[in-house]
Amino acid sequence: MLQPPPARIGMAEQDVDTPALLVDLDAFEANLDTMAALMVARGTKLRAHAKTHKSPVIARLQMARGAVGQCVQKVAEAEILAWGGVGDILVSNEVAGADKLARLAALARICRIAVCADDAAQVAAIGVAAAAAGVELRVLVEIDVGAGRCGVPPGPAAVALAQMIDATPYLRFGGLQAYHGGAQHLRTHAERAATIGAAIDMTRRTVEQLRQIGLACEIVGGAGTGSFDLESASGVFTEIQAGSYCFMDADYARNLDESGAPVSRFHHALFVLGTVMSAAQPGVAVLDVGHKAVAVDSGLPLVWQRPGIAYTGASDEHGALRVADDAAAPKLGEKLRLIPGHCDPTVDRFDWYVGVRRGRVECLWPVAARGAFF
Amino acid sequence: MLQPPPARIGMAEQDVDTPALLVDLDAFEANLDTMAALMVARGTKLRAHAKTHKSPVIARLQMARGAVGQCVQKVAEAEILAWGGVGDILVSNEVAGADKLARLAALARICRIAVCADDAAQVAAIGVAAAAAGVELRVLVEIDVGAGRCGVPPGPAAVALAQMIDATPYLRFGGLQAYHGGAQHLRTHAERAATIGAAIDMTRRTVEQLRQIGLACEIVGGAGTGSFDLESASGVFTEIQAGSYCFMDADYARNLDESGAPVSRFHHALFVLGTVMSAAQPGVAVLDVGHKAVAVDSGLPLVWQRPGIAYTGASDEHGALRVADDAAAPKLGEKLRLIPGHCDPTVDRFDWYVGVRRGRVECLWPVAARGAFF
Repeated sequence: MLQPPPARIGMAEQDVDTPALLVDLDAFEANLDTMAALMVARGTKLRAHAKTHKSPVIARLQMARGAVGQCVQKVAEAEILAWGGVGDILVSNEVAGADKLARLAALARICRIAVCADDAAQVAAIGVAAAAAGVELRVLVEIDVGAGRCGVPPGPAAVALAQMIDATPYLRFGGLQAYHGGAQHLRTHAERAATIGAAIDMTRRTVEQLRQIGLACEIVGGAGTGSFDLESASGVFTEIQAGSYCFMDADYARNLDESGAPVSRFHHALFVLGTVMSAAQPGVAVLDVGHKAVAVDSGLPLVWQRPGIAYTGASDEHGALRVADDAAAPKLGEKLRLIPGHCDPTVDRFDWYVGVRRGRVECLWPVAARGAFF
Repeated sequence: MLQPPPARIGMAEQDVDTPALLVDLDAFEANLDTMAALMVARGTKLRAHAKTHKSPVIARLQMARGAVGQCVQKVAEAEILAWGGVGDILVSNEVAGADKLARLAALARICRIAVCADDAAQVAAIGVAAAAAGVELRVLVEIDVGAGRCGVPPGPAAVALAQMIDATPYLRFGGLQAYHGGAQHLRTHAERAATIGAAIDMTRRTVEQLRQIGLACEIVGGAGTGSFDLESASGVFTEIQAGSYCFMDADYARNLDESGAPVSRFHHALFVLGTVMSAAQPGVAVLDVGHKAVAVDSGLPLVWQRPGIAYTGASDEHGALRVADDAAAPKLGEKLRLIPGHCDPTVDRFDWYVGVRRGRVECLWPVAARGAFF
């Protein structure tokens, strides 16, 4: 069952029911503007990743600022974006199963759609689905640039798969998918530069090998919020797939720039609002936000602008707070903002965004693709 | 948006779309029967915890076998159970905020409802809500029996709060809530026995102090799947609040019994079905089940009945599998069952249970209280 929205437009933030997923609209819009300006300066396209926000509304705000389209991980996410008016979608992932591929092909009637492959059998299955629907599907070859997850090796294996795509009726070779997830969270700039530098070299060589046999890469896509500076300066990547930049989270905020300072270009714009539900014991308190409401896979959330109060443990529906001796103790019923450790899965816990600006609720947006992992 | 069910009744398990939340009905019913028989043998009541299953259907199957009612953590969970016909519900938790308390009081018109408190201000607020609705609410005093989360200290502080409840119009003192969450996952029987033994002693003394001033505890509730053997044999606890026993998970299966062997009374009955979406590299494969579809807060999931294949890492929508040299390599498109590390939050990721028996889909049940953390 869909939960009702926890707020009404116009109410004070402090009156919002909890747990609630807040978007600080000033910070959020600044993040969108910052990324858009960076992409213009570098001549690189942004294809923002909707696995972060799961919202056609946010997709369209990104595209209004110049993003060429959206990435998704799942067919169900693509459906919800397409139904919400997004016109250019890349499934930056493999899709297994004839039913899912039929759904993907059906979307090609209402938007531009592309998908990745790393296996000849998969290419054949995508071709069958496209032929059955009578549509052309763009297929990118995913190459493994060091993450060791999906993807064929760069070089000859990728070229062979591209040739197969090119030779399959109803399919069009769309380019390369070259994402290194693990590199996003390497803490120092030097580590990220070394890892992504190697990924760029592998990608550049593969693009060149494809060019030599007459296959152009319309899209060379990859990069995330942690590494896009490097890919966007490479001259090889045409599209940047950052997602988290629009919200930021505690984990990305631990990344360091070249000077060793935390990367500070994007602001925290996503929060989980919680209520102190128990303060029966000195030095501790309990917030009504456990790991069912805030993701803990990349670390615990941070308490926003309340020095001396730390979120120290999550159970299903309880968040344990430790209160330093010299800190103002949170009171029963008081509301606190948390910065999620990881924004993407935190968003996926909620049915509604509550957009706030200077203490007032300005908008409600559905997390339309919540749970859309099919 | 609610996702459509990933299966049709009658289809083969291997045709179910993924990721899917499977209930193995034979194992599940055996777990329900086992717990029901244990409660009869010990003369203790079961008030199963619905934070695990979030389903009025499962609640009613438990109650058909003798459970006296259900526990929930949240008012929204209580609403969904009450609307689904469950007649006796304990919110085994504190509820903060006038709006939530008004919703709770409204439920008292359609079912028996009780709630916990650990603060005088909270008791007053519950009284206001009950009076406004013109209903009687039962209120239990939560005591901290060592978990250090919610609850007043056992003894005089608890007695004082019980007296306040007893003296508040529209409220009825309902007893004690004495749950020790951390003890559920202590691995050895000796550790659990020591921790729960202390909790039982604190609870017994408080019950006795209340009795001496004429306040009887209709409910003395607590215990979970890891510790209920102890509370149910105590002579103090009247109601057992186990939830996970109906499904079991990988984390609870790491608990050891008195002989040092894994506790084996309950069977794994809950699985996440996934599809191999990439097998492009030797020795590894990728399942379409990441931490958006299977909770990782209590450890990674285990692969069911596929020796030599291990789930070694979760990203949002990818599960990394490591394949031993001598293991049968999973094929692209093949479907595998995972045993979740933690059943409760895994259930909360899904809109539908797919009930299977001997390889066929027998039923679909909505996870009706999914996301009901308000």
